[in-house]
Amino acid sequence: MKSSADIALLACGGTLDKDYNALNGELDFSQSYLPELLKQARHQLNLRLETLMLKDSLDMTKADREHVLEACLNAPEQQIVITHGTDTLTQTAEYLADHINQQKTIVLTGAMRPFRLGESDAGFNLGAALMAVQTTRPGVYIVMNGRLFEAHQVQKNRQLGVFESL
Amino acid sequence: MKSSADIALLACGGTLDKDYNALNGELDFSQSYLPELLKQARHQLNLRLETLMLKDSLDMTKADREHVLEACLNAPEQQIVITHGTDTLTQTAEYLADHINQQKTIVLTGAMRPFRLGESDAGFNLGAALMAVQTTRPGVYIVMNGRLFEAHQVQKNRQLGVFESL
Amino acid sequence: MKSSADIALLACGGTLDKDYNALNGELDFSQSYLPELLKQARHQLNLRLETLMLKDSLDMTKADREHVLEACLNAPEQQIVITHGTDTLTQTAEYLADHINQQKTIVLTGAMRPFRLGESDAGFNLGAALMAVQTTRPGVYIVMNGRLFEAHQVQKNRQLGVFESL
Amino acid sequence: MKSSADIALLACGGTLDKDYNALNGELDFSQSYLPELLKQARHQLNLRLETLMLKDSLDMTKADREHVLEACLNAPEQQIVITHGTDTLTQTAEYLADHINQQKTIVLTGAMRPFRLGESDAGFNLGAALMAVQTTRPGVYIVMNGRLFEAHQVQKNRQLGVFESL
Repeated sequence: MKSSADIALLACGGTLDKDYNALNGELDFSQSYLPELLKQARHQLNLRLETLMLKDSLDMTKADREHVLEACLNAPEQQIVITHGTDTLTQTAEYLADHINQQKTIVLTGAMRPFRLGESDAGFNLGAALMAVQTTRPGVYIVMNGRLFEAHQVQKNRQLGVFESL
Repeated sequence: MKSSADIALLACGGTLDKDYNALNGELDFSQSYLPELLKQARHQLNLRLETLMLKDSLDMTKADREHVLEACLNAPEQQIVITHGTDTLTQTAEYLADHINQQKTIVLTGAMRPFRLGESDAGFNLGAALMAVQTTRPGVYIVMNGRLFEAHQVQKNRQLGVFESL
Repeated sequence: MKSSADIALLACGGTLDKDYNALNGELDFSQSYLPELLKQARHQLNLRLETLMLKDSLDMTKADREHVLEACLNAPEQQIVITHGTDTLTQTAEYLADHINQQKTIVLTGAMRPFRLGESDAGFNLGAALMAVQTTRPGVYIVMNGRLFEAHQVQKNRQLGVFESL
Repeated sequence: MKSSADIALLACGGTLDKDYNALNGELDFSQSYLPELLKQARHQLNLRLETLMLKDSLDMTKADREHVLEACLNAPEQQIVITHGTDTLTQTAEYLADHINQQKTIVLTGAMRPFRLGESDAGFNLGAALMAVQTTRPGVYIVMNGRLFEAHQVQKNRQLGVFESL
């Protein structure tokens, strides 16, 4: 695959991309809202957006993680941001860190409140992730809560709903 | 001044902090909404927030810029993010770059649409600025549109409403 | 009970008052958002707000409906608006219609999308309900989708997520 | 003109339909947001929406009021709701009341905060107006702040930003 973009933005779903379904009262996926978020953000990046899947990260399988890995390996861009559910964000980051043998900067991020519900952390997180991918040396990282963590050195604190260093 | 914070966040107002005044139909300032934005962002940074002024940047005077400079010089933190109106964002960045003789990383940012009006770029920009200040070597920068610019190397394109390299 | 209010607004919860819980990813109740909605609405009504319960209407029991009936009977106001989950909105309306022997105008309403998630029908529905209660002769009514229905003459179409005449 | 609709909704602009223009920092008109508001409201009314003009009501001329009057006279619907800026809302209501000789119910409403800026009273007001037009005898009315006023018996209190009886 060729690409004239500088950054690949790979969407995997997660809370960030959920919306309220008025018919059944559940939160589910209908489409990725990253195009709307990016428009709102008025970004001027040379960005290629690709939706790999729209999944609750608790439902992600080993095959899904392999698919994400393949997408990273095949991406012509050296800078990759991945949006992903927060529940298994650290697992996917570790899987990528263990299998990527390229000089790429890969930053995973997500949101604790869906973008479409308003008052979300999605824009803040994506802004931080897109900056980190441009300013950080190759490696696999998680950006959440305004902080940059290396894969294998971070966990989600489920009681507080924040990410913290191991 | 002593501070146990890692990052100083200095608010100067600008579009980011304006709100609609229902009584007169104008956009004006009543308070800084950065505390609300930061709460929404669920940040876990060791941050000190200080409101220096709440001004439309077209109304900023030389004395105002000196005040911002003093605040940067006096800040015990080595990492400083400044929120500021976009119309004279580059001027203040240049003024700071010309007068700072310390090893500090200073990142200026703003918004094209007020945070309080919804669908704003404020959260995205602040997320990017707070990441840049942690990951970039000392200097004075502007973060807008997902991009990192050095002071003196950026201008606002008023027709498009975006920042671009000189 | 004495009251100097003209209208009683009785909150029972339902989708209208749910919010997203970032810690568990579920929609649940923490408080009624009617005070916030009413402030946003800039209403100038002489209104008494009372929260009877905060329940998903699928969880409402016979005892809950008796509690709502008691609150209507005991309310000194002649005009009563009730916010309620939509799933059993018609059942509660019928129960009230069958047991109220007073000359009161009672209007039940709800929302298909929570107020706190943005882009909600809550404000529109409450505005319509508060107008209907002031302009309609005594009886028990449902206001949804901009329409006024009499109890016993309306059903929820679950496929379309709208209320329609029987 | 023939119409199979029950209610005509005539848009004249006003604060309700303004949005923030990021390029010049002003509030102005680009389109009517009533279709978006009505979709959000999930209304099931048999409604005909017509945009007569998009004007700040301080800029409305005698010719504009004549145009609104003509639209009311020519509308095949017996129920008419008009959205209009609040600054001269009472003037237009009086003008219509003085010149309408038909058995129509005409309800004027507006908003103190633009729909597009969030936290607006627009949905609440439109819900109340659309209910009032269905439940009130012929005449010309203003619906604001959850209240129903007859033309000639209401004024805008500019200090408080609310409508009150004369």
